[in-house]
Amino acid sequence: MDHAATTPVAPEVLEAMNPYFSEKFGNSASLHYFGREAENALEDARRYIAKFFGVKPEEIFFTSGGTEADNLALKGIASAFGKGHIITSQIEHHAILHTAKWLENHGFDVTYLPVDKYGFVNPEDVEKTIRKDTILVSIMHANNEIGTIEPIEEIGKICRKYGVYFHTDAVQTVGKIPIPTKNIDLLSSSAHKLYGPKGVGLLYIKNGVKIEPIQHGGGHERGMRSGTENVAGIVGFAKAIELAKKHMDKEAKRLSALRDELIKETLKIGDSWLNGHPTKRLPGNAHFGFKFIEGEALILLLDEMGIAASTGSACSSKSLKPSHVLTAIGLKPEEAHGSLRLTLGKDNNEEDIKYAADAIQDVVEKLRKISPFKK
Amino acid sequence: MDHAATTPVAPEVLEAMNPYFSEKFGNSASLHYFGREAENALEDARRYIAKFFGVKPEEIFFTSGGTEADNLALKGIASAFGKGHIITSQIEHHAILHTAKWLENHGFDVTYLPVDKYGFVNPEDVEKTIRKDTILVSIMHANNEIGTIEPIEEIGKICRKYGVYFHTDAVQTVGKIPIPTKNIDLLSSSAHKLYGPKGVGLLYIKNGVKIEPIQHGGGHERGMRSGTENVAGIVGFAKAIELAKKHMDKEAKRLSALRDELIKETLKIGDSWLNGHPTKRLPGNAHFGFKFIEGEALILLLDEMGIAASTGSACSSKSLKPSHVLTAIGLKPEEAHGSLRLTLGKDNNEEDIKYAADAIQDVVEKLRKISPFKK
Repeated sequence: MDHAATTPVAPEVLEAMNPYFSEKFGNSASLHYFGREAENALEDARRYIAKFFGVKPEEIFFTSGGTEADNLALKGIASAFGKGHIITSQIEHHAILHTAKWLENHGFDVTYLPVDKYGFVNPEDVEKTIRKDTILVSIMHANNEIGTIEPIEEIGKICRKYGVYFHTDAVQTVGKIPIPTKNIDLLSSSAHKLYGPKGVGLLYIKNGVKIEPIQHGGGHERGMRSGTENVAGIVGFAKAIELAKKHMDKEAKRLSALRDELIKETLKIGDSWLNGHPTKRLPGNAHFGFKFIEGEALILLLDEMGIAASTGSACSSKSLKPSHVLTAIGLKPEEAHGSLRLTLGKDNNEEDIKYAADAIQDVVEKLRKISPFKK
Repeated sequence: MDHAATTPVAPEVLEAMNPYFSEKFGNSASLHYFGREAENALEDARRYIAKFFGVKPEEIFFTSGGTEADNLALKGIASAFGKGHIITSQIEHHAILHTAKWLENHGFDVTYLPVDKYGFVNPEDVEKTIRKDTILVSIMHANNEIGTIEPIEEIGKICRKYGVYFHTDAVQTVGKIPIPTKNIDLLSSSAHKLYGPKGVGLLYIKNGVKIEPIQHGGGHERGMRSGTENVAGIVGFAKAIELAKKHMDKEAKRLSALRDELIKETLKIGDSWLNGHPTKRLPGNAHFGFKFIEGEALILLLDEMGIAASTGSACSSKSLKPSHVLTAIGLKPEEAHGSLRLTLGKDNNEEDIKYAADAIQDVVEKLRKISPFKK
C-alpha cells in the first residue's frame, strides 16, 4: 500500500522492454541497422506518449526520471531568461522546492504560495502574485503526500492570460487521472510511478517555450537532453502508459471506492483524522493523522504485519523533520509526526483494505499504550 | 563492430537485473521491507563496484549515465568554487567539451589543450598550464574515436603535486583496461559500454573533494544526486563490472590481436592510414582514414553487408561537421571525412575480422570508382 513511492514493473511492460536489452540493443544515435532499430523504437514510444498527452512528439523529451524533469523545467527556463521571478507552492515535491531554493541562491526571486487546510493552492493567489518579471509558475498536479488534486486548469488559464509559463509536476497523476494539458506549457512525469521502470521520465515542453538544456553533451533529444537514450526504459514507459490508459477510468473508480472504505474504517479510531480533501484527492491516496503516535513506529509495526506504508513521501521518509506538506496545511509538529500514508494500486483488493484497517487499529492501540505523548 | 557506441546487455547481467523490476521493486528510500530490500541491493552493488575501483563505497555516486557523470564532475566542482580555471583537452567527448563551453559562458576560464598526431595530451602541457586559480583538470582515459590511451597516471601525479583536482572520463576504459585510480579525484563511467544497461552510470568522487550537486530533490545518493535510484540498472552495472573483471586481461589480449590483424589487413588498401597510436590504444579500437571517400557512404555500404561501424563517435555520427578529434590530430577536413571506426567486442572473432577486412576493401574500391574527389 505504498504505490505512490514506486510500483512493480507490469509483466507486459517488462515483456515490451526485454528485446531492447540484448537483441535490439543499438545506440539510437548510430547510423547502422542496430542504431536505426533503436531510433525507431524510441520514436514510436515518443509518438505514442505524445498522443496520450494530446501533444506533438517533438514536445516530449525523455529524462532519467521525474526529478531530472523538474530540474530541467525550472533551471532550463531560468537559464533561458537569466533572471526573474518564479511562483511555486509550499507543498511541492523536493525536486521542485530544492531546485527553487538553488535558483534563489543564484539570483532568482521565488514565491512559495501557501495552501489551505486541504492543501489547495488558491488560483487567486497565483494571479495576485504574478509580477511583470514572473517567468514561471510551477504547481504540482496532485500532492505526493496528502493526495490533494490542485486546480491546475484554473491556474493554467491565469498563467496563459498573463503570458507566464506554467509547469506542473504530474509525477503522481499521469496514468491515474486525466491530464488537462490545454494550458500547460511544461509537465513532468516518471515511469516508475505507473508500473514502468525506474530511471525513466519525461518533460513535456510546448513548442516555442524559451528553455535551455541543463545537461550538456552529444545533443540527444534534439539538443535538449544529452546522454545516450535509455531505449529499453523508454519503450517500457510507453507500454506502461498504454496499460494505464486502457484501465484508467475503471481503476480510478475501483481505487476510489477502496480508498473511501479504508478512510471510513480508519477514522473510527479515536483521535484520528484525514489529511487532504475528502474527495478531491488521488484515487488511491489515504493519509491519516493519529494523536500520540510516532509515524515511524507505526510504519515498522505495519511492516511486520506485511503492510508496506509510508509516513509521507518515500524520498523524505528517513528524515526526522516534520513533513513540509503537513506543516503547510497547518498541522503542529507533534500532529505531523503521527502520520500514515497508504497509497493503493492495482494489486490491492477489498480483502487488503479490511486487513489493513484492522491492522492499523491494532497497531495504533498498541503504540498508544506505550506512548510517552499520551497523558 | 561498433562496441564503443554501445554493447548488448550480457545475459548474466539481464538475469541479475530481472528480479528488481517486478518482484524486488521497492524504492530504496522507503522504510518498509520492499524499501530495505532495494536499499540492500543498491548498497551491495555500490560496495562491489567500489572494491573493483579500489575506492570506498561512499565515494561512488550513481547517475543516469556517463554524460550526467561528466556534467556533475565539471559543474559540481565549478559550482563549489564559484570561479576559476579548468584545463581539459581538445579531444574530449562532447559531454565534457559542451559542459566546459557552458562553464565558459558562465564566467569560468577553460584551456583546451592540443594533442599530438597520435592524440596524446602532453603531461608537460598540463603542468605548464596549471595556474593559481586552476580548480580542475579533466582529461579522458581513452579517446572514444581514435582509441588513444592518455597518460593519465602522469597527469594525475602533476595535478596532485599542484593540489588541483583531476577528473577522468573513463567511459571507454572501465572493464576494458586497468584503471589507475591512485591519483584520480573524480572518474566517470557508463554501464552500457561494458555489456550493462543504458541509463546507468557513476561518478567516483574521492572523499574530501569540494563539489556540489547539480540535480536537486529528495537527497538521494547522500545528497549528491537526487532522484529515485534505478535499482535494476545499478544491480546490472555491478554484474557487468563483475563479468568484465573476470575476463578483462584475457579479453584485452584477444581483442588486441584481432585489432592488429584488422589493422594489418586494412592498411593494405592504398591511400589509407591508421588514426591514433599503433599500440597505445584501446584493445578493440581500429580507426582508419581513406582518401577520396565519404565516411557515411562507407558506413551505409558496410551496413548492407551486415557490418555495424561508425565514422566517429555514435553521438556525433549524424553530424556533418568533421570530427573535432580528427581535426585536433591534424587531419584536413577532407581527410577527416573519409574515416571509419571499428570497435571490437566479445562476440567478434577471427572470421569476423577476415570478413570485415575483405568487405572494407571491396567497399572502398567501389566508392572510389564513383568518387567525385578522386581525380
